[in-house]
Amino acid sequence: MRSVCVVGLGLIGGSVLRAASAAGRAVWGTAGSAEDVQGAIGEEFTVTDVDSALRRAAEEDALVVVAVPLPNVDAVLRKVGDLAPNCLLTDVVSVKGPVAAAVARYAPDTRFAGGHPMAGKSASGWSASLAALFSGAAWVVTADEETTLEAWREAAQLALDCGAGVVPTTTTEHDAAVARISHLPHVMAAVLAACGADGGPLAMALGAGSFADGTRVASSRPELVLAMCEGNRDALLGAVDDALGRLGAARGALASTGALGATIRSGHAGREVFEGQRDAAKAQAMVDLAGQDPLAELRLIGAQGGRVTGFDGDLAIAALPVLAD
Amino acid sequence: MRSVCVVGLGLIGGSVLRAASAAGRAVWGTAGSAEDVQGAIGEEFTVTDVDSALRRAAEEDALVVVAVPLPNVDAVLRKVGDLAPNCLLTDVVSVKGPVAAAVARYAPDTRFAGGHPMAGKSASGWSASLAALFSGAAWVVTADEETTLEAWREAAQLALDCGAGVVPTTTTEHDAAVARISHLPHVMAAVLAACGADGGPLAMALGAGSFADGTRVASSRPELVLAMCEGNRDALLGAVDDALGRLGAARGALASTGALGATIRSGHAGREVFEGQRDAAKAQAMVDLAGQDPLAELRLIGAQGGRVTGFDGDLAIAALPVLAD
Repeated sequence: MRSVCVVGLGLIGGSVLRAASAAGRAVWGTAGSAEDVQGAIGEEFTVTDVDSALRRAAEEDALVVVAVPLPNVDAVLRKVGDLAPNCLLTDVVSVKGPVAAAVARYAPDTRFAGGHPMAGKSASGWSASLAALFSGAAWVVTADEETTLEAWREAAQLALDCGAGVVPTTTTEHDAAVARISHLPHVMAAVLAACGADGGPLAMALGAGSFADGTRVASSRPELVLAMCEGNRDALLGAVDDALGRLGAARGALASTGALGATIRSGHAGREVFEGQRDAAKAQAMVDLAGQDPLAELRLIGAQGGRVTGFDGDLAIAALPVLAD
Repeated sequence: MRSVCVVGLGLIGGSVLRAASAAGRAVWGTAGSAEDVQGAIGEEFTVTDVDSALRRAAEEDALVVVAVPLPNVDAVLRKVGDLAPNCLLTDVVSVKGPVAAAVARYAPDTRFAGGHPMAGKSASGWSASLAALFSGAAWVVTADEETTLEAWREAAQLALDCGAGVVPTTTTEHDAAVARISHLPHVMAAVLAACGADGGPLAMALGAGSFADGTRVASSRPELVLAMCEGNRDALLGAVDDALGRLGAARGALASTGALGATIRSGHAGREVFEGQRDAAKAQAMVDLAGQDPLAELRLIGAQGGRVTGFDGDLAIAALPVLAD
């Protein structure tokens, strides 16, 4: 089994280190936070300075996992380009465009496929990490035109070993999708929380289920939310424009006829699509990795809402939701 | 203990009937839904036609509780005006302006104070009702200029007997507050769910915590959501305009400088205000109901985010959140 070098040992990086180790892989890490370093060493994980960690990765042909916040990605990739310029490389950062651009700039000869596990919790740091964090989660591994099958499969195997299902898609499509289902929800929750608090102590006293749920993610650390939202600026602009258009239409309908039916019914239908796909029966599909254009076939799996659940020789086994008409 | 006549035996009305009965009160009800009627009779509650129920309420000077959806309120109040024109009257409808207007029009001689328990669940009908639904919840009882202390106290005592805390406020202030913490959250959840579904199967496959929480109430029955949102049109317009302004500002900042700090930080601060008030220590306060203007003092309790928790003779005992500076 290929060994794994994790750069950054916070909630996500720490959980990758634990999960890969639990899967039987040789693992080591490095981190900028003294607290995270001490926590990992205290549990007998191997933690070194970043130069040593990357040199060892180059020597052993390990998979390097970049698990630092987006603002620190450039600095880490410069180091990778210097010390492990041909390594197998992936990352677990929540936007993929800026990471792909930084790889092309600083570490262009690495064998890279981007990654994004769709899992988290509100606490952060090594102390919050756990091996089971990714169990059953979706984990995007990017399959772009320039991605090699080798790099994609190595990143995907790590995700599978961490207990996740692999969603193959492009960098651009990933960023557009997460703008809608992760970054826009954070912006909407912030707007709703501010509007509620403007209602004063009476409104706060009456806030219950709908307000509590709708604003929950507004309690996340602002720096982390800003890093992911601002890092996905172009795609998020499109999603915010869609929301502004829909909210403006609701405003217009309420002011003119008093009727919100179109807004509420389209939202109800959207939620039913989400629940329906989540709870749908799954059909098995297979992609021949020795075939003509396996990455294109893998992208089709992702576009249909499916995920790769394992490999069998040169076959990728996938589960596709069986959607009602 | 004053007996209670509940008109409408769905989730909320059924739960009031159960809770008042469990508190030792004589209770009876009436309902338009055959399913709800049969459910209540099957559990040995007294259920009659609406005319008989209201005549008995007039005879026994019972408290009448209107627990039908807003579109049916006028018809019920016409009956009350005919058959129990001087009764003690309250309601459990989620908007208070239209109910107060209908009472003034159809049953102006009743001794009325409006009510709104801030509790619910996604299932509806008698079969979903339960005596403990209001346990620990806030329950607004309106205290307007024209409200009599007798009517307010009778409605408040019912709320207390159901296990809730009583929030005194005006009809107008109630409707403005719930526009922000209940109706706007439904509109925002609908907008978010529609924007997410527009992202197609890939976006739906990646939707996790933030999208699932932010769209949860979009799965509510559209007819119920529409009745409460459209019934609070004027106040909701103001709240939607506030949200549009904030979302538009976020859009402008993202497009121009790429910075969402003001949006995300104000949302984080708003959520902290909500959690801070919810989790705050509580100080005891008292209102002398035999004093000069007890309803004005009660309204101050509500305006500070407090609730009345009991009566002791002519004293109303209240709990006020102790807010950090």
